[in-house]
Amino acid sequence: MIKGLDQLLKDNFNITIHDKSLLDEAFTQASYVNEHPNEGLKFYERIEFLGDAVMQLVVSEYIYRRYPKLPQGRLTRLRAAMVNEDSFASFARECHFDQYIRLGKGEEKAHARERDSLLCDIFESFIGALYLDQGVEPVVAFANQVIFPKLDEGRFDEFFDHKTELQELAQQNGPVTIAYELLSENGPDNDRAFKVAVKIDGKTLGVGEGHSKKHAEQVAAKQALNKLQQQAR
Amino acid sequence: MIKGLDQLLKDNFNITIHDKSLLDEAFTQASYVNEHPNEGLKFYERIEFLGDAVMQLVVSEYIYRRYPKLPQGRLTRLRAAMVNEDSFASFARECHFDQYIRLGKGEEKAHARERDSLLCDIFESFIGALYLDQGVEPVVAFANQVIFPKLDEGRFDEFFDHKTELQELAQQNGPVTIAYELLSENGPDNDRAFKVAVKIDGKTLGVGEGHSKKHAEQVAAKQALNKLQQQAR
Repeated sequence: MIKGLDQLLKDNFNITIHDKSLLDEAFTQASYVNEHPNEGLKFYERIEFLGDAVMQLVVSEYIYRRYPKLPQGRLTRLRAAMVNEDSFASFARECHFDQYIRLGKGEEKAHARERDSLLCDIFESFIGALYLDQGVEPVVAFANQVIFPKLDEGRFDEFFDHKTELQELAQQNGPVTIAYELLSENGPDNDRAFKVAVKIDGKTLGVGEGHSKKHAEQVAAKQALNKLQQQAR
Repeated sequence: MIKGLDQLLKDNFNITIHDKSLLDEAFTQASYVNEHPNEGLKFYERIEFLGDAVMQLVVSEYIYRRYPKLPQGRLTRLRAAMVNEDSFASFARECHFDQYIRLGKGEEKAHARERDSLLCDIFESFIGALYLDQGVEPVVAFANQVIFPKLDEGRFDEFFDHKTELQELAQQNGPVTIAYELLSENGPDNDRAFKVAVKIDGKTLGVGEGHSKKHAEQVAAKQALNKLQQQAR
């Protein structure tokens, strides 16, 4: 059994995996198995195959329900922003999963433990182990703690053009007029601050600040988007 | 409500969707919604987004459990052979879903009803509706009736190279010797028949017949694969 992992999961996520062999499998790389040929070990790849599909569904269902007016193309892009190597590797690090991976000596020397692709795999294989042990509900609870709050924190924002998104959402039920209005502009040249309002058919739905007009507009558009999406729920 | 669809689902699959609006949404194309702007209709795309993820998981879990020794790369290829436009379109036709799609007049004239891409979408959106209405279990039951039996019928065989697959599976726990032995060859030149046995470490695990030696070997390999996979279950 992998030392400390059990405790980490219990302490941080209130998760207890009953079948410990699943957990061992999920955190073991092939290189480690090859170095311990007589221990009957398994490596994470098959479980990761399953965990990947579990994660896709859990994220898909969450955003499907949370954004009931978002068209399919936008849902697909949002999911791609959430479910990818970059974000899963960072989730794995935040969960301290990197410290518990069993690697062969060569891989350890090659700094595999810090490699995004491996960390992403391990995040998915952990999800697979949790799913096999307890079904989908604990996976949703884990995602509610680790993944979904990041939507509100703006973690996936860089993947979005909020102005385009606002336009698409606002005009879904017919044409509307969207206007950005500069409310104020001040500060010294090297630290300029802009304040912009976005109005839909004359009604202010969002106000944003930023060091450029463009950034302030994006912030305002995001606020308006959140408002529209909350109304639609 | 779409006429006859309810009865079809009941008669052929013992499925009753309780929320009829989900079923309407799942079988309605955007072109139809555009032609009926005042009826508050929805088209299938969002539900299809969800159905696609549901189907991925259901198929992934099935093959993960059914082939406990199949490595990840093979699982991925098998899933891709099962979950794709071609196969889903043919499932939709077999289920007679094509007859119940609501299309705009232009799309109808353009024979959209026969288009693989649309039929695949509708198959997925039906799965999405079933999932939203009743959760994952009825989707698994539906797949057990419509999709999974096709694995045994050899529907996905063209995607596989059974000889390679057999080699990978047989050697998973160490090196073995795989040999193909020509048992017989007869018939006229334009209708030649070959019979081949495949032996693993000297033990015959499969016999195949075909009009070429290559085809007979593939059939023999497939038989051996089935035997090994059954042993592994």
